[in-house]
Amino acid sequence: IEQIVREEQNRAGALELLMRTLQLADFWRESGRYDAYGPEMLRLTDRHKRELLYGPTNEEMITGIFRAYVKSYRGLPLNLYHIQWKFRDEQRPRFGVMRGREFLMKDAYSFDIDEAAARRSYNKMFVAYLRTFARMGLKAIPMRAETGPIGGDLSHEFIVLAETGESAVYCDKEVLNLPVPGEEIDYEGDLTPIIEQWTSVYAATEDVHNSDRFDREVPSEKKLQTRGIEVGQIFYFGTKYSDSMKAMVAGADGAEVPIHGGSYGVGVSRLVGAIIEACHDDAGIKWPEAVAPFRAAILNLKQGAEDTDAACEGLYRELTAKGIEVLYDDTDQRAGAKFAAADLIGIPWQILVGPKGLAEGKLELKRRSDGARENLGPADVVARLSS
Amino acid sequence: IEQIVREEQNRAGALELLMRTLQLADFWRESGRYDAYGPEMLRLTDRHKRELLYGPTNEEMITGIFRAYVKSYRGLPLNLYHIQWKFRDEQRPRFGVMRGREFLMKDAYSFDIDEAAARRSYNKMFVAYLRTFARMGLKAIPMRAETGPIGGDLSHEFIVLAETGESAVYCDKEVLNLPVPGEEIDYEGDLTPIIEQWTSVYAATEDVHNSDRFDREVPSEKKLQTRGIEVGQIFYFGTKYSDSMKAMVAGADGAEVPIHGGSYGVGVSRLVGAIIEACHDDAGIKWPEAVAPFRAAILNLKQGAEDTDAACEGLYRELTAKGIEVLYDDTDQRAGAKFAAADLIGIPWQILVGPKGLAEGKLELKRRSDGARENLGPADVVARLSS
Repeated sequence: IEQIVREEQNRAGALELLMRTLQLADFWRESGRYDAYGPEMLRLTDRHKRELLYGPTNEEMITGIFRAYVKSYRGLPLNLYHIQWKFRDEQRPRFGVMRGREFLMKDAYSFDIDEAAARRSYNKMFVAYLRTFARMGLKAIPMRAETGPIGGDLSHEFIVLAETGESAVYCDKEVLNLPVPGEEIDYEGDLTPIIEQWTSVYAATEDVHNSDRFDREVPSEKKLQTRGIEVGQIFYFGTKYSDSMKAMVAGADGAEVPIHGGSYGVGVSRLVGAIIEACHDDAGIKWPEAVAPFRAAILNLKQGAEDTDAACEGLYRELTAKGIEVLYDDTDQRAGAKFAAADLIGIPWQILVGPKGLAEGKLELKRRSDGARENLGPADVVARLSS
Repeated sequence: IEQIVREEQNRAGALELLMRTLQLADFWRESGRYDAYGPEMLRLTDRHKRELLYGPTNEEMITGIFRAYVKSYRGLPLNLYHIQWKFRDEQRPRFGVMRGREFLMKDAYSFDIDEAAARRSYNKMFVAYLRTFARMGLKAIPMRAETGPIGGDLSHEFIVLAETGESAVYCDKEVLNLPVPGEEIDYEGDLTPIIEQWTSVYAATEDVHNSDRFDREVPSEKKLQTRGIEVGQIFYFGTKYSDSMKAMVAGADGAEVPIHGGSYGVGVSRLVGAIIEACHDDAGIKWPEAVAPFRAAILNLKQGAEDTDAACEGLYRELTAKGIEVLYDDTDQRAGAKFAAADLIGIPWQILVGPKGLAEGKLELKRRSDGARENLGPADVVARLSS
């Protein structure tokens, strides 16, 4: 998951760095958020009685880094991101990784000379997020959203629809069928047609939902009112932090101007929960291939029998040598328990190795997503999984 | 760096999991270390006034996890590790990443039924560490060491010799020539000959150095007294945490016994500094290939000229398509400044693209480690770097 997020950020021209989890309070005093941020911010003092905080987000720190290094419009546009642990001291943490207090987040911060350039940066991240979630097998819908403590007046949340989701959402069903840009997308080209396509169809979170507009714009048979899980959010906040923290650059004419900023977050650890919510059935998880912890599971249906043990071990070695990650269930459980466990943990492919099939030189390859089964020789199984 | 550490841990049979950075004080009260650990432990309280701490190490938390899940000797031996940020509130942080307060550490914890089994786990990590540092191009010497606040009476620090190191060390020069086990090492086999080979030669940190023994065991021409950088440390501490925290398992005879534990740390972020200290000359860093941020740097010696620009861009595309990470210096600097910058940042291979060589169809390939240069056609450069 982390690697997909990273690849799509890099593709969109963002540069990776790393900021630490604990920050000095000083920058936050400059922006005014040290007092404005509520009890969700975890504050502490070190042995020298300096005030620290466990970063819930990094607008202040990145602006501090930016202003120390970039002084001219020639250094722009710039988009910096890191993937680091955050802490928000939620009143009521719940749903395990979905809303834990400590979570892993990718957060990117863009710096531009003016609003038009900043919107281009915003659009790049908009497209990168469409691609990121699609690669994970998720249908994440960008919806107009509140900006909250980050600030600004333009924001989209990327929402995976799920009955168990935490937020109510409203959208036009058309938005479910919009195409996601492919790998060939040119981030330096004009992205506005894509953005317009996605934002012209009604999709809004509860907080900014306007029922009059919903009624006016969406025919009733296309209205979808459901719940969703937020997996990412992007913000354009203009000069909110550059004004207060004096992050200025010299423009082409030499005059100093405050930079226009945006920030872009993906909840990496919470995505694990979102993927499970979106991809499961009554028997358990159905991991999409791109994010599965293993590609295949070998189930030895008669542990301790010479032929099945040898076949399983040979298969395990061969697949591993080809760089395919395999989980081998070599426990003493009976076959039924192994079937149930494999369905529960949801590895995309199951290889069932039993004495009967083996007598005919066959294994059974089962796809978890739709339950399709096929009898194949070991070499064909390896070939299928290597493709 | 992180990936090499991970691969060698997995090879030695350790299982990866992830623990969070902030811990509840409760477990630390059980072990008695909440009071015993000095001001280096960063303590804080959350919005519900619960006492938390930013983990400086994880013996307590992992023991808490272990005792909740493992009840029988059949679950042993077990070695669990994670790679996570730690915080130690040092009185005087210094040397940047070398002794920062916040640092990334791989820490592994072993659980065994008795001391003999625990020593086998210790030996596995000993060998895994030899391999880990060697793969990074480092000569890290295991030296007898103090156990400090972790506890126990057996410990080795892995030390990279460097005049700028923080600790004084004493050893027999013979230890510099001992062989590091290869990839074919069988971790389930008998590792004691390797351990004996490495521990029979004198090597000790200042804290446990015994000058009488040093004089007795090491001929004076082989005595080496220098300084070093600690990059890893391993501990066997027996039942220190299992006694206090009641981490018991049922043995084969059904009787409950406390487990015997060890812990094993590698300073992942500090390794960046250690590698630079160990691998540099007056002109800058010389990254070993296995840990270099890029494999090659392309230096366009005449930026803006049609032929050099085209050659550089073609080369960049071709190398990138082959999965080789390349940095392209396409700035407007003059050639001399580009040479100096490339030597300073220390990418292992430099590809110098100038108009004169190009007229003859040649580029210059320079190896940073020894400065060796060779004139080659573009196809040969690609072939050389792909091998």
